[in-house]
Amino acid sequence: MNWLDEVKWDANGLVPVIAQERGSKDVLMFAWMDREALAETAKLGRAVYFSRSRGKLWFKGEESGHVQTVHEIRMDCDNDVLLLQVTQTGHEPGIACHTGRHSCFFSKYEDGRWTVTEPVLKDPRAIYSATPR
Amino acid sequence: MNWLDEVKWDANGLVPVIAQERGSKDVLMFAWMDREALAETAKLGRAVYFSRSRGKLWFKGEESGHVQTVHEIRMDCDNDVLLLQVTQTGHEPGIACHTGRHSCFFSKYEDGRWTVTEPVLKDPRAIYSATPR
Repeated sequence: MNWLDEVKWDANGLVPVIAQERGSKDVLMFAWMDREALAETAKLGRAVYFSRSRGKLWFKGEESGHVQTVHEIRMDCDNDVLLLQVTQTGHEPGIACHTGRHSCFFSKYEDGRWTVTEPVLKDPRAIYSATPR
Repeated sequence: MNWLDEVKWDANGLVPVIAQERGSKDVLMFAWMDREALAETAKLGRAVYFSRSRGKLWFKGEESGHVQTVHEIRMDCDNDVLLLQVTQTGHEPGIACHTGRHSCFFSKYEDGRWTVTEPVLKDPRAIYSATPR
């Protein structure tokens, strides 16, 4: 059996993916993959997601340069969620979020409201310049 | 604005949730919450999910005794994914998975196949006894 067939793809042919930083073990982001994205991720050793908004493969870092090197791909007990161990490249410390923050999970619940807890490490306007990479 | 209204619930009224162990920073599991589950989680300080298979609230640990104490609730940049920092109680080391393993992410991709990498810490038959808690 092909390893890609063991993944339980949802009705849209997608599977949720958690990206965790190898060193810090911080959860950096959450995204989706289709079959082709997972195959490319395994082949290239870099994270390739499926962009639901753009309806196509998203080679993480293709615009920002913030590529994720993938060290490990794990799957959960129901075969319907993936977990990547990655190194977030392109900036030190790593920027995974399109807002210029280290992690996408920068809103924290406190006393009935969401509070922003992480600093912007680089201005998104400087990350996403007009010049395509 | 109510903090619960800031979450972008999907078409089914759900949001994906990642549970991460506070001390080890291991990603333990992935589940879903509806509005009521998130409200209960914040109120009780323990993880309450929405079981899609059973179509109702799932007080994590209600059968297994493996309750998750919730220390922190975070939300991502798109307001559509949550991240919990938890302590996995009921067994030492913590068992989050229904298979009796520490984490649900025990399958690892290696050379074209998925390999089980984590030991069963307790027999699931002993975890899920006939006696309801």
